[in-house]
Amino acid sequence: MNAELIAVGTEILLGDIVNTDAQLISQGLSELGINVFYQTVVGDNPARLRHVIETARDRADIIITTGGLGPTLDDLTKETLATVFGKKMALHQPSLDRLTEFFNKIGREMTKNNEKQAWLPEGCTVFTNLWGTAPGCAFEAYGKHVLMLPGPPRECNPMWKECAMPYLYKLAGGCIVSHNIRVFGLGESSMEHILHDMMEKSKNPTIAPYAKTSECFARVTAKADTTEECEKLLEPVVREIVELLGDDVYGVDVDSLEQVVGDGLRAKGLKLAVAESCTGGLLSKRITDIPGCSDYYLGGVCSYANEVKMNVLGVRKETLDTVGAVSAETAEQMAAGVAKALGADIGVGITGIAGPGGGTEDKPAGLVYISVWYDGKFFTRKTNSSFGRDRVRMQAASTALDLIRRHIL
Amino acid sequence: MNAELIAVGTEILLGDIVNTDAQLISQGLSELGINVFYQTVVGDNPARLRHVIETARDRADIIITTGGLGPTLDDLTKETLATVFGKKMALHQPSLDRLTEFFNKIGREMTKNNEKQAWLPEGCTVFTNLWGTAPGCAFEAYGKHVLMLPGPPRECNPMWKECAMPYLYKLAGGCIVSHNIRVFGLGESSMEHILHDMMEKSKNPTIAPYAKTSECFARVTAKADTTEECEKLLEPVVREIVELLGDDVYGVDVDSLEQVVGDGLRAKGLKLAVAESCTGGLLSKRITDIPGCSDYYLGGVCSYANEVKMNVLGVRKETLDTVGAVSAETAEQMAAGVAKALGADIGVGITGIAGPGGGTEDKPAGLVYISVWYDGKFFTRKTNSSFGRDRVRMQAASTALDLIRRHIL
Repeated sequence: MNAELIAVGTEILLGDIVNTDAQLISQGLSELGINVFYQTVVGDNPARLRHVIETARDRADIIITTGGLGPTLDDLTKETLATVFGKKMALHQPSLDRLTEFFNKIGREMTKNNEKQAWLPEGCTVFTNLWGTAPGCAFEAYGKHVLMLPGPPRECNPMWKECAMPYLYKLAGGCIVSHNIRVFGLGESSMEHILHDMMEKSKNPTIAPYAKTSECFARVTAKADTTEECEKLLEPVVREIVELLGDDVYGVDVDSLEQVVGDGLRAKGLKLAVAESCTGGLLSKRITDIPGCSDYYLGGVCSYANEVKMNVLGVRKETLDTVGAVSAETAEQMAAGVAKALGADIGVGITGIAGPGGGTEDKPAGLVYISVWYDGKFFTRKTNSSFGRDRVRMQAASTALDLIRRHIL
Repeated sequence: MNAELIAVGTEILLGDIVNTDAQLISQGLSELGINVFYQTVVGDNPARLRHVIETARDRADIIITTGGLGPTLDDLTKETLATVFGKKMALHQPSLDRLTEFFNKIGREMTKNNEKQAWLPEGCTVFTNLWGTAPGCAFEAYGKHVLMLPGPPRECNPMWKECAMPYLYKLAGGCIVSHNIRVFGLGESSMEHILHDMMEKSKNPTIAPYAKTSECFARVTAKADTTEECEKLLEPVVREIVELLGDDVYGVDVDSLEQVVGDGLRAKGLKLAVAESCTGGLLSKRITDIPGCSDYYLGGVCSYANEVKMNVLGVRKETLDTVGAVSAETAEQMAAGVAKALGADIGVGITGIAGPGGGTEDKPAGLVYISVWYDGKFFTRKTNSSFGRDRVRMQAASTALDLIRRHIL
């Protein structure tokens, strides 16, 4: 079975809000094993809404709409769907009672237009709205399934999970399961190059490559009648990919490098401190994005000025005077210095030129040295990227985490 | 003229990512006075992509696609658009040169599949990608305008603003100018309440309120034949709004609080240092997001562990033992301590409970103390928010910047 999502709302077309309902529902449909081939957004315009519904009716088994269920004149979703699918509208007394009670409770008069929300397609399954006023609903007609949900995410989200997903679960049968293999140190195109033959020949599970800022991942997705059968199909394929990509794989179904490194540090009982120059606190921010990081993270020093590098971290003046602040030597002294200053087992030092200004011919913007100190040893890497300040910094912070992962954990 | 947006990417249909490109582009089109009637999302499937493009061709004047320009087999946007609009593909040598240079620079081999990114519809206008590898482009055929942008927001966003919007601007005729009045310390609904009467009666310029994480802004937009006429319409309206909102306005057409504070520090020749506990480096990261910040930013200390608060920042053990790490006293000692340790004119101290764990009845998750030390005086504020870890931290970092802006600059 395949589904099409239709969001009804001029505010999305104007860019006032982003269509997060579509993401929520798509994730849920993916879990249910229902394919989504199209998502459409259309405004509060009867002719265009009808056109979109008719198109969806001809190509999808399930139509799920969000928005346009409210009391105002431009809320037209129910009426238009009923027309296209040959349904009459009928007053749903329990919904009207709920509305009346709601307005009594908040001490406001229920204006006449609110009654509109209790008129629903005849014979539909009503999704009671415990989170707002407009009920949702579902019906079947001409062999198609139609579901309507309210637009505001605080109503759409719980109604989707508590009413619509259980409704669809009964229809769906079958099952879909995905695993994500997360990779750092390999570009998307290189990863695809390595996986190319597997991707070509593998139909179930399918293998798809994705890029994220400074990293990438491969998603492997299987369909079968049960979760167990899906996992059985997935296991050898995931194992083969992990073998092919080797040490560049930092985890399967993990959230992020900072999560993986954090879990590893906690498991080994190691304490971390970081010293950042060009990343300016980004690495520290990413480490502390993870709740509970105080188990292994002591803190950091952002040493933007050379005086801070010398006075707080103990970087030697001769080093700064001879090889300069942007050098492997400075990165290493920062790494060892912050570990000492904060009493940590592992120290990180990052120094470079984030850009766009500040570069020279010898040391162009984008050049960064990253060093990790542990147990008297340094693991140091030089990176060079030309994607602008944000990505230079992101790449440098990720590289530091990756050095810890590869060499210490 | 009306436009249709087509996002190409199975990752959106699977709910892995939310379609923020659509919001960005819709906002821009709205500013240009171009209507958006439909947004569509389709997967990396040639037949369905073609179907969506053909539908758009028959109902829109302008088609803007995002995604599917990359090197992999399932990147099909260019090829499919070229087929539908009867265009041949041709190798664009300058794009190939850029790609080759890029891979040389990062020291990776350019695999053969990357060349695909340099093949573009014959005779198109090329949008050079300064933020990634795949170029965008635009062409006209059968009286329709087609624009293609890369999918990743960090590439789509700047290419849209710097290449695609100017391209469309020439097509749109007329002129549109906006000013953004940036506000911190006032919620969106309070701002709307204050501006309500002005918003009701003002048709050109229009006034629209927007919310951003922990701040909001009002956008004033005028349409006229020339930029000068637009500015003439805008000037009195912007002035009136700034007067109405008073000291909560931190700037007009400025990028961010960190930019405004940075400019102010540079102008006054003041040096800043920050000490962060619960924000974990986020404030330092935001300050160093601004190129050239080394003019006024010395650095920071992330004192996650109490030992770091005492040993590096000089927070007194009695303070931590009596009122605790999350207190106005600790924030103030951190602020004065980091200024002293790093030799700065201004010191910031932030301490709190970002959550979700770590809260108590007295000190719930979301409680944060922010203090700014300058010239022997403290400016201290307590905030309390229940919107989750990310927003608690963002709000705290913004509050620190806002305290500097209000009391020192």
